[in-house]
Amino acid sequence: MRDKITVALIGAGRIGLEHARNLASFPEIQVAVVCDPVIEAARRVSPLARAGGITDSAEEVFARNDIEAVVVCTPTSTHAEMIERAARSKKAVFCEKPVALDLQRTREALEVVKENGVPFQIGFQRRFDSGYAEAKRRIEAGALGRIDQFRAVGRDPGPPPKEYLAKSGGLFIDQAIHEFDLARFLAGEVAEVYSWGTVRFSEDAAALGDVDTATTLLRFQSGALGVIENSRRAVYGYDIVTEVFGMNGKIVIQAEPKTPLRHYSETGYQMDHFHFFMDRFGPAFRTELESFFRCVAEGTEPSPGVTDAIESLKIAVAATSSWKAGRPVKISELAV
Amino acid sequence: MRDKITVALIGAGRIGLEHARNLASFPEIQVAVVCDPVIEAARRVSPLARAGGITDSAEEVFARNDIEAVVVCTPTSTHAEMIERAARSKKAVFCEKPVALDLQRTREALEVVKENGVPFQIGFQRRFDSGYAEAKRRIEAGALGRIDQFRAVGRDPGPPPKEYLAKSGGLFIDQAIHEFDLARFLAGEVAEVYSWGTVRFSEDAAALGDVDTATTLLRFQSGALGVIENSRRAVYGYDIVTEVFGMNGKIVIQAEPKTPLRHYSETGYQMDHFHFFMDRFGPAFRTELESFFRCVAEGTEPSPGVTDAIESLKIAVAATSSWKAGRPVKISELAV
Amino acid sequence: MRDKITVALIGAGRIGLEHARNLASFPEIQVAVVCDPVIEAARRVSPLARAGGITDSAEEVFARNDIEAVVVCTPTSTHAEMIERAARSKKAVFCEKPVALDLQRTREALEVVKENGVPFQIGFQRRFDSGYAEAKRRIEAGALGRIDQFRAVGRDPGPPPKEYLAKSGGLFIDQAIHEFDLARFLAGEVAEVYSWGTVRFSEDAAALGDVDTATTLLRFQSGALGVIENSRRAVYGYDIVTEVFGMNGKIVIQAEPKTPLRHYSETGYQMDHFHFFMDRFGPAFRTELESFFRCVAEGTEPSPGVTDAIESLKIAVAATSSWKAGRPVKISELAV
Amino acid sequence: MRDKITVALIGAGRIGLEHARNLASFPEIQVAVVCDPVIEAARRVSPLARAGGITDSAEEVFARNDIEAVVVCTPTSTHAEMIERAARSKKAVFCEKPVALDLQRTREALEVVKENGVPFQIGFQRRFDSGYAEAKRRIEAGALGRIDQFRAVGRDPGPPPKEYLAKSGGLFIDQAIHEFDLARFLAGEVAEVYSWGTVRFSEDAAALGDVDTATTLLRFQSGALGVIENSRRAVYGYDIVTEVFGMNGKIVIQAEPKTPLRHYSETGYQMDHFHFFMDRFGPAFRTELESFFRCVAEGTEPSPGVTDAIESLKIAVAATSSWKAGRPVKISELAV
Repeated sequence: MRDKITVALIGAGRIGLEHARNLASFPEIQVAVVCDPVIEAARRVSPLARAGGITDSAEEVFARNDIEAVVVCTPTSTHAEMIERAARSKKAVFCEKPVALDLQRTREALEVVKENGVPFQIGFQRRFDSGYAEAKRRIEAGALGRIDQFRAVGRDPGPPPKEYLAKSGGLFIDQAIHEFDLARFLAGEVAEVYSWGTVRFSEDAAALGDVDTATTLLRFQSGALGVIENSRRAVYGYDIVTEVFGMNGKIVIQAEPKTPLRHYSETGYQMDHFHFFMDRFGPAFRTELESFFRCVAEGTEPSPGVTDAIESLKIAVAATSSWKAGRPVKISELAV
Repeated sequence: MRDKITVALIGAGRIGLEHARNLASFPEIQVAVVCDPVIEAARRVSPLARAGGITDSAEEVFARNDIEAVVVCTPTSTHAEMIERAARSKKAVFCEKPVALDLQRTREALEVVKENGVPFQIGFQRRFDSGYAEAKRRIEAGALGRIDQFRAVGRDPGPPPKEYLAKSGGLFIDQAIHEFDLARFLAGEVAEVYSWGTVRFSEDAAALGDVDTATTLLRFQSGALGVIENSRRAVYGYDIVTEVFGMNGKIVIQAEPKTPLRHYSETGYQMDHFHFFMDRFGPAFRTELESFFRCVAEGTEPSPGVTDAIESLKIAVAATSSWKAGRPVKISELAV
Repeated sequence: MRDKITVALIGAGRIGLEHARNLASFPEIQVAVVCDPVIEAARRVSPLARAGGITDSAEEVFARNDIEAVVVCTPTSTHAEMIERAARSKKAVFCEKPVALDLQRTREALEVVKENGVPFQIGFQRRFDSGYAEAKRRIEAGALGRIDQFRAVGRDPGPPPKEYLAKSGGLFIDQAIHEFDLARFLAGEVAEVYSWGTVRFSEDAAALGDVDTATTLLRFQSGALGVIENSRRAVYGYDIVTEVFGMNGKIVIQAEPKTPLRHYSETGYQMDHFHFFMDRFGPAFRTELESFFRCVAEGTEPSPGVTDAIESLKIAVAATSSWKAGRPVKISELAV
Repeated sequence: MRDKITVALIGAGRIGLEHARNLASFPEIQVAVVCDPVIEAARRVSPLARAGGITDSAEEVFARNDIEAVVVCTPTSTHAEMIERAARSKKAVFCEKPVALDLQRTREALEVVKENGVPFQIGFQRRFDSGYAEAKRRIEAGALGRIDQFRAVGRDPGPPPKEYLAKSGGLFIDQAIHEFDLARFLAGEVAEVYSWGTVRFSEDAAALGDVDTATTLLRFQSGALGVIENSRRAVYGYDIVTEVFGMNGKIVIQAEPKTPLRHYSETGYQMDHFHFFMDRFGPAFRTELESFFRCVAEGTEPSPGVTDAIESLKIAVAATSSWKAGRPVKISELAV
């Protein structure tokens, strides 16, 4: 990396806090300011980032010329605006997913990014997990040959609060989008989806017209088939498994156990399981930022970027449509 | 079991040979005769069964009053007739799957079984595998609570010869039917299916209007969702994995490695994989026969029986229809 | 194999019963007679072997010229005599381990075997387990290069009854001898041993001057080091693990779980463990007999044979001496 | 932790660099200075620690009253002196293991620590690994009941350079001491050891009168037995496995694979292995520092501390003596 990059952290909530720790660990990064409308949150997070100051004004951040990049961890509803303002003030942008819950708003914001030519990275952290990154390397090196089937399961330990759910865009856009991104990352572009969703346990999901359990078929442009299973609750933990099957073999990415310990007792032997996305993907959150800032320093294009943000959302939107309409939906059908 | 049960083995091919060995290992079973139209095949298999004699005439078998039960391992096209003739001669029938490739013929044959009141068991051997049997016990004991998702993968090491494929009824009826049976066995009755199939590598499948790769969504009567992935070829072996996910946890049935050996070398460590269904399910083939003969001896009803033969075929037929029509098919839509 | 080999099974106890089943499964084998001084035991086991008859007289067995081979499963104290009588009546001998509890008696009996030139195999069944056999093949093919370290653990689910213990020869001769045989099988001849033993839980062991827990260092003739851990009790089951470490890697033979099933629940995920040697090594018991009879049929020398019976006992005797004397004991020190 | 603790990092080599990163990640820690006689090393590491300055003078560090704690990562030969000087200047001390290569010097240094009443922690980082820490918790909670056997293997990917070896104190003091510490940590105090060592591959070890391969028997004060296997080279990586066996079960701590990925191909399936101690125990290095500074902040006694530093060295010294003398050595025999 370059000598120093001066950065602002915008948003001092749960994810902001995690990014703060990681920012402090990069010697080339200087966090100039932590910004949150709740100044107390900024004050709490600031020492973790070893930040130079705090503010409750994003305006102030965008106005500072010494700040070269922003890390956006604000609520989803503000992402698009933050991205646009950062881009217009010529700052590199790392933003948590999603840009917005609909395609139109997403495109608008990313259009501004392109117009201003600033580096942009979207927070699909799984791509930086050692398992997924290594799978990508092997697949690109041809280890599997032609890919024929893809599978992912994504199960959260428990459903989010109703208030979160209400603004989430629904299971496909909020949760399954991570699996849709993995599908594109590892197996290529998706041509068509077909989704079944149902409510099995969440009264909140029912009340909101959302689902808590879903399965989505994918047809890739290559002709390969894929399937994604989601659930908003798994009592045993955070269940993320991905399998890519090709003519020369298959690769399975599955992190178990969490603790390197087997306990043998009268009933057999037991291992534990990851319970939170931060536990499972903690190192990936660090690596994605490291990659972003390397690109900023070297002037190369960060990845996953604008296209990845849009394409994964398109799959999620199509899946939502398919579930509602009860029929397969082609990605090409989506109004642009 | 009772003191002695006198049995005929009809069909001395690959599966017949396996059953012969197992029959010899039950002290209560006396194989009176091995029957095959190719008398040389019968002669070869007879010593493995410690059989009393051989014949090329099924007629002769059905005419013998001392023979109480038959194990049918003939080509699929003859199963229905063999079942009917055995039932009419009041013999208990164990028959390899499927009864027939279409529902009409299957129903006819099984009607004869019911009319004659003979014990009948269909050869879904996986139900007797230690993993699947234990999963069933735990699920019935309530270990998972309400079941919400089901998943199975079935991949063969390589596609069968074209001649076999031509008479197989297609991937859904020939191969996926094993997964459909597991779905019913572990997660309950299926209400609706939706299948995507494609040809990725098999010219034979293409020529025959069949597929070599497929994914099938299942909606269970309980409202749970399921998905089944199939491929006719996996270079690493015989890939059979099943997962049942419920409100209290999940159970995964997966047999790896084949050999209890880890080999550590400069590239990490390696295990092997099952390559053939006989390797993977060999003990289950013995256990299914043991269960059948116990039922015959005790006068109880064997399982999986008539209903299982019909219901699994219905799912397979519906899946085939769905794939061809490109739309979800309800089991209740099926004629008959 | 040849057309037919006529065999007598001598000893109709627990192991005899297991061998009976396996003998019935070999079409080339005809069990002429099951022999046990308790004629009821012979009667019970006879149908499992599909035997031609039963007897309580070993004399009668040895007198029969049509019997070509004997499988000896009598109590240990009678093994040596049975081997001698069988050898003198020119019958091939498969005998459960050990030949005798002391070297002198073992040598005498095996001398008679050699004098009479009959095929002889000792019942170290683990060598025929798929894991151990494959390890042997890889090691012989040079996969590990020079071997530097060897490790085995042998833990039984629970201690045998006091009456058995009293006649067992002690932990090293009764239990650890299986690990000593594996050491020779996989890593070569042993030059020196050093054993520590202790009583942790078994009052019977204490009363008999035996131990229930022990660790033995091995120095191989090659200079490699080895270690063997034994316990007479493991609440989680039958714990048999072996590791061979060499300049190019290591091989670990470990069979877990018993049932191919993972159960995920709130506390993580759980697998089961083997509980009995028959469960773990059941197939190996069949394969060792198959190998013995192939050798008999082909006129080749069975293995493990006379040398293996003697050399493993020498290690066990030396280990016992080392434990008692509190010093390393060289195998070459043993009086011959 | 308290608001701020001002710290000096002494020693800017490989381990110093790792500690630097971790120090920067604790918001409560301010690294005042990085000290190394090679000022260029200090300059390189300083930004990683976000340090306030650099120096080549340890004198200067000890003279500063604002510095409350030191993290000592200098060469082993200087540890004792650094500890003494830090203690005398009333600074809390975290020091990499070992204090010194002999007991006399170790005791002297630690006596100074005690006299000055400063917090002291020795760098046995494995205790802070999630697997080992959890094992400790379960064992202390009584999950295993009485402990009967302990086993550890410690294999490095490759031997260190000859210059390092020459000053290392030998395999038992340099490498096996980590396993000796785990033995004490998980299974209690050791009463007696017996070691065999040999040279299998390292000409350097031979030339220095050291060994590259060793096995050590342990007798715990409780009467339990233990065994430790070491090798200076394992082609497949960094092989650290620990097993604690008790009356109610066993716990195995084993971290595999490194990457959560299974690759299935024609030869079976493959996983990777840890290759370096930094990869395997990276998070533990962070956690041990976190624990140290929490103790400093709260005024509690850090652990592992003075006793742990001495007792583990005593086992290593006794093991070295045993290997040289060819006889068991009691810890109580050690002079002092």
